Amino acid sequence: MKNMDDIESRYRDKKVLITGGAGFIGSNLAHRLVGMGANVTIVDSMITDYGGNLFNLEGILGKVSLNISDVRDRHGLSFLMRGQDYLFNLAGQVSHIDSMKDPFTDLAINAESQLANLEVGRKEHPSIQVVFASTRQVYGKPVRLPVDESHPLRPPDVNGINKLAGEQYHRLYSDVFGIHCCCLRLSNCYGPRQLMKHDRQGVVYWFMRQIMLGEKIRIFGTGEQKRDLNYVDDVVEALLLAGSRSEAFGQIYNVGVNESISIKDMVELMIDVYGSGEYEIAPFPPERKKIDIGDFQTDYTKIRTELGWRPKTRLRDGLAATFDYYRKHGDKYWS
Amino acid sequence: MKNMDDIESRYRDKKVLITGGAGFIGSNLAHRLVGMGANVTIVDSMITDYGGNLFNLEGILGKVSLNISDVRDRHGLSFLMRGQDYLFNLAGQVSHIDSMKDPFTDLAINAESQLANLEVGRKEHPSIQVVFASTRQVYGKPVRLPVDESHPLRPPDVNGINKLAGEQYHRLYSDVFGIHCCCLRLSNCYGPRQLMKHDRQGVVYWFMRQIMLGEKIRIFGTGEQKRDLNYVDDVVEALLLAGSRSEAFGQIYNVGVNESISIKDMVELMIDVYGSGEYEIAPFPPERKKIDIGDFQTDYTKIRTELGWRPKTRLRDGLAATFDYYRKHGDKYWS
Repeated sequence: MKNMDDIESRYRDKKVLITGGAGFIGSNLAHRLVGMGANVTIVDSMITDYGGNLFNLEGILGKVSLNISDVRDRHGLSFLMRGQDYLFNLAGQVSHIDSMKDPFTDLAINAESQLANLEVGRKEHPSIQVVFASTRQVYGKPVRLPVDESHPLRPPDVNGINKLAGEQYHRLYSDVFGIHCCCLRLSNCYGPRQLMKHDRQGVVYWFMRQIMLGEKIRIFGTGEQKRDLNYVDDVVEALLLAGSRSEAFGQIYNVGVNESISIKDMVELMIDVYGSGEYEIAPFPPERKKIDIGDFQTDYTKIRTELGWRPKTRLRDGLAATFDYYRKHGDKYWS
Repeated sequence: MKNMDDIESRYRDKKVLITGGAGFIGSNLAHRLVGMGANVTIVDSMITDYGGNLFNLEGILGKVSLNISDVRDRHGLSFLMRGQDYLFNLAGQVSHIDSMKDPFTDLAINAESQLANLEVGRKEHPSIQVVFASTRQVYGKPVRLPVDESHPLRPPDVNGINKLAGEQYHRLYSDVFGIHCCCLRLSNCYGPRQLMKHDRQGVVYWFMRQIMLGEKIRIFGTGEQKRDLNYVDDVVEALLLAGSRSEAFGQIYNVGVNESISIKDMVELMIDVYGSGEYEIAPFPPERKKIDIGDFQTDYTKIRTELGWRPKTRLRDGLAATFDYYRKHGDKYWS
């Protein structure tokens, strides 16, 4: 897309801080930004079971500044934000399941730390441009499809409530204090460098793992539930646009795909792309059923018309690229 | 209303915990519950500048159990919740202005502590019935009037974001864990026992104070902004209904009035009821302008049709009763 040419130059020689930068989306963003000539600082807590993985930085490790610290460390973050042109706020507790078992950790990371970052911005660094990764989970079980940004907000889990608070702080600090913030509500993302060691952050990557390890996939429910799947390169482009376009300041955008796919069709496509694999349909475990949201399809008209973003990667191609990555590097991700 | 006869018997001999019970709404609720024969325990932090005032308990002080503690004290709350039939979660940081200066305190009280109460309920006390006092502030500046519960949520300040998280936790714990919770989104409340010592919690009570102390009222803006004013006795009845009716579990209800009134008309009515007073129109101070929400009118159809609640007190009568109270007891409230 034409927009991306402008974007390339926008980030060149700029100082960019990425929280959660050793994680899935953060590391893919870091690779792209290094390629554009940005000076990237990565903050990652490397909490066991979260998404941080130093192998994600293979190839750019000498070209970025890596700082192992937690976004709950307010003083550290405040220091690290000094002099930065951009902040990509991607660090998060992302497991819906974990948020129901330990809601306070989720609150501290997804809400309180975001507020702390914004307070630093307001008091010490009002010119910083901030992008926050929110989630379609803020909508909860859709009452209409596709879901646009005006859809009612009824998060189905603690994670969704705290992410909603986190994004609303960003929107508010933009409205009231003029800090340049943009929030993206991401859907299911997949691609290289995603955590693969446990199944508590979603199903897409886990099914790919099971296929690659020759395990039988269990689809909960009927398999008819529809999901949006965004390839990580497309998400990275949305983040880069959101950070650099003045129209985006103070806005919240959905990021989605043109067509959602049923979980069963997705699994069949995965098996077809990979060349082998099997699955069965099984009843929902109760703790997952309670927070399942049924069908989901995003309406991403707003970001398409306002920022010119659209997903470019066909699902088949994205899955193929992802399988390729883990074929080569799976040993760095399985455990 | 007929409903209230059932309610009277519902709370008799029941154990009721009220957080913020020495504050404005909490103490009025406590008086009513003691009158019904409930066994009331009051928790209040008595934080300077918040609403707690021991004089609010005049007349019931020997009949309730009073526990001075903060809702951020998780262990204490957990102990105090044991054996209670009802929890009225009224403790809160209620100043919109203060929430913009010290957002972390607001977060800890209005969101984190609510989550802590609910975790106690889930783990130790799943039969407790909980009512949470939310606020119309969760809607932000209305995009349509009157505002019903499906109106978009766009809080105009940190307080509104944190209160939204607090109410959503209640809704979620009801949905997922089956704890009986109901949330009421309250509008501007007025009446006896409200804080009168500073102007950071609203304008209605402050204008009444100014009239009583012979000071000239300054109305910011044009005076045309419309507000809902609920008399505290009506709010107490809504709380009592919300806690005791099974239809209310898991629900969120607006509480409002039949007709909103402009701030200028409200002041003129106050002056008429009191018998003296003067006002002027002045420009908004910038920090208030930023979080002003313009006109507001609540649609309370849902609570009217589902629980049979409606406001009973005419504004003129409520104002007269409030002036009467402060004529007698103002010395306990002015500073």
